[in-house]
Amino acid sequence: MRVGAETETGMSRLSLSDTDKQARDWFHETCTGLGCKVNTDAMGNQFAIRPGLSNDRPPTYAGSHLDTQPTGGRYDGILGVTAAVEMLKVLNDNWVETNYPVGVVNWTNEEGARFPMSMVSSGVWAGSIPLEKAHELRSVIPANDPATMKTELQRIGYLGEVPCSWEATPMAAHFELHIEQGPILEAEDRRVGVVQGVQSYKWFTLTVKGRDSHTGATSFQHRADALLTASKMILASHKIAAKHSALASTGILGLRPGSTNTVPGFVQFSLDIRAPQDETVNAVEAECREAFSSLAAGENVLSINDGCAPSSRTCSVEWRTDFTSPATHFHDNCIACVQAAGSDLCSGSSSSQVQGKDIGAWGKLMTSGAGHDSVYANKRCPTSMIFVPCRDGVSHNPTEYSNPEACADGANVLLGAVVRYDKM
Amino acid sequence: MRVGAETETGMSRLSLSDTDKQARDWFHETCTGLGCKVNTDAMGNQFAIRPGLSNDRPPTYAGSHLDTQPTGGRYDGILGVTAAVEMLKVLNDNWVETNYPVGVVNWTNEEGARFPMSMVSSGVWAGSIPLEKAHELRSVIPANDPATMKTELQRIGYLGEVPCSWEATPMAAHFELHIEQGPILEAEDRRVGVVQGVQSYKWFTLTVKGRDSHTGATSFQHRADALLTASKMILASHKIAAKHSALASTGILGLRPGSTNTVPGFVQFSLDIRAPQDETVNAVEAECREAFSSLAAGENVLSINDGCAPSSRTCSVEWRTDFTSPATHFHDNCIACVQAAGSDLCSGSSSSQVQGKDIGAWGKLMTSGAGHDSVYANKRCPTSMIFVPCRDGVSHNPTEYSNPEACADGANVLLGAVVRYDKM
Ligand SMILES: NC(=O)NCCC(=O)O
Ligand SMILES: NC(=O)NCCC(=O)O
Repeated sequence: MRVGAETETGMSRLSLSDTDKQARDWFHETCTGLGCKVNTDAMGNQFAIRPGLSNDRPPTYAGSHLDTQPTGGRYDGILGVTAAVEMLKVLNDNWVETNYPVGVVNWTNEEGARFPMSMVSSGVWAGSIPLEKAHELRSVIPANDPATMKTELQRIGYLGEVPCSWEATPMAAHFELHIEQGPILEAEDRRVGVVQGVQSYKWFTLTVKGRDSHTGATSFQHRADALLTASKMILASHKIAAKHSALASTGILGLRPGSTNTVPGFVQFSLDIRAPQDETVNAVEAECREAFSSLAAGENVLSINDGCAPSSRTCSVEWRTDFTSPATHFHDNCIACVQAAGSDLCSGSSSSQVQGKDIGAWGKLMTSGAGHDSVYANKRCPTSMIFVPCRDGVSHNPTEYSNPEACADGANVLLGAVVRYDKM
Repeated sequence: MRVGAETETGMSRLSLSDTDKQARDWFHETCTGLGCKVNTDAMGNQFAIRPGLSNDRPPTYAGSHLDTQPTGGRYDGILGVTAAVEMLKVLNDNWVETNYPVGVVNWTNEEGARFPMSMVSSGVWAGSIPLEKAHELRSVIPANDPATMKTELQRIGYLGEVPCSWEATPMAAHFELHIEQGPILEAEDRRVGVVQGVQSYKWFTLTVKGRDSHTGATSFQHRADALLTASKMILASHKIAAKHSALASTGILGLRPGSTNTVPGFVQFSLDIRAPQDETVNAVEAECREAFSSLAAGENVLSINDGCAPSSRTCSVEWRTDFTSPATHFHDNCIACVQAAGSDLCSGSSSSQVQGKDIGAWGKLMTSGAGHDSVYANKRCPTSMIFVPCRDGVSHNPTEYSNPEACADGANVLLGAVVRYDKM
């Protein structure tokens, strides 16, 4: 079954779109068919619960998300949910009775592509993001779409009645299988990544204002060119991040008025800063703030203005912070479950329970470069993740690919980790 | 009467829009009411003709354009047409009979803002641009609008039956009043600019292709970041132009996929290069071609890459030439008519017929930074232009402003130049 428009080999299924509704319907029907009760909360998060021998404790969850980037792949998020559904089938087929209930979760708008906060619905569940703020988030794709998360949840019939909170939907633990989205496992020829945490990141929207003017009749000296200034800022953010071994990226840029012969007086762009440590992200942000102010004022920074024409006019720059996700360290017990399950599958022994840099050639202890719902899950229950390699380390791209063996490895480790945690 | 959406104090009347149709209807009715025959050609150019004592020679024309930038001003083009219509009224009110006919022209899509070739319809008239090419031009505003010039001309009822050519609609001469769109007249406190020519310019569309990838999971080393690369190119074009005392500007930039956490793999932007001499424009273009190729390949150019992280992946860059307007030198007879009319109005004597740098404190001999339909008119008939000062030199901006005295000066000189030419 394919739900979502095909883009080359990839997938385009923005959160709360019509095709996302179809994917949700599939999730609901499939999990119900597998004997689960499926609840939907006020953010549209879907929770399928398979009862255990004893049901006086919360379920151990596996899951991820079914939304994609505008032109994304077929694995990011999707693998984690489908492998978790597969886990339910394997448990059923083998008449396995777990000690406590087991759950599968599909989180809403993990990507942050359509509604510009990533992992926003696990964030509300964790109590880290206010429900109202999330409900009022506006779509950025397509541009000028007036839809909010709440109006879209209503429209597709997924504004659930269960409150969105860890208290209303408690979890004993949360395990998430995901493609690595980076090149390390493939390069080092490892089958499984045992994920110990997630790097820190912040998202900003920058607004640069100058003055619309004629490209032919306005000398450089009389310009306040918002796009030239924004170009310098994008370059500066890259240089500053490189200096700190951090990342800075701009994925969205819009301008006005948008005419070949008008120097743009208005530019808005996104800035995504990441690094393993919160302090590094904060340092890059602080340096960017200083550099952007200087560039807007026409001052030379990082030699960027060498050879530029001087101007008697300046631009203004404004920062808006859209999203902050501090560095995350997953729970030792969950990391241990993943490591044991990986070792069992790949090396035939689960003896290497000791955590350490060298966990055997099959796997690698690692930190995630991307954010995941496990970041917020981890705030309210023990959590860890499982990575599998993806071709060329590429993600957020229609050519994203993980081979069937890698997907099977991941699904096996996910099952093993959940069953182990249930036994703990 | 106001025709076109109000933007602050300015005007938004894109070529061949519904409001442009209203402005054309006004032009047709007004000129017909003033006793003119009004013809429309296959590009929608409107020609109003007031008969002379003898009608065996072509009319001497005054005119400009009624379309505006997406968020433009109320003077650019509009002043030239309304002053020409005013000229008809003055001639009528004073029972002036000219030796030969006098005409007023409204050229279509001068701005090149909606259909991305400026002065395209005077270009077709002059035989410089093929009719089919102009008819097939696609709208760039709004993005993804499938309209072409031809479908829009048909839709608003202005696809005229007269062939668009200087043979079908001959002109004895062409005079155009325009706001300066630059700061010189205001700064030097001169009332009138006697325009001797127009600088050279070229328009290009650049396409940069890299690879969509995850902003958090993709190290700088593994990126082919089309936006970072485009930002460097925009900066490089500025530095190269500055070195040559030329201009380079980017007014349009679009990217895909457009998500905060995806490094864009596709960017397209406009490049507008201008200089007084064709050779300078060509030199800037050649240096930009070399610099852009180097930047796409990850090489350091103009120190722009100093402090950037190296990458093992490269981008590609493609150039498309959209429009070329070589440097233009107007006709001595027309320049002399403008100078004499200006001198008459401002200094009370038309004796200073000698052309030279110093034409009296009232005026200035100058070259236009912006392109005008007079560029193409000049290819088929003697032509010159009249500039009047505008506040802060600002144009292509809703705040564009020329005070009533300046507008009256311009209208007077326009009338004086046309009458003088008719007598020659
Ligand atoms: N895994 C993933 O692509 N998450 C989206 C949030 C982020 O940008 O890291
Ligand atoms: N006058 C004017 O704005 N013309 C548009 C063509 C150009 O870009 O110079």
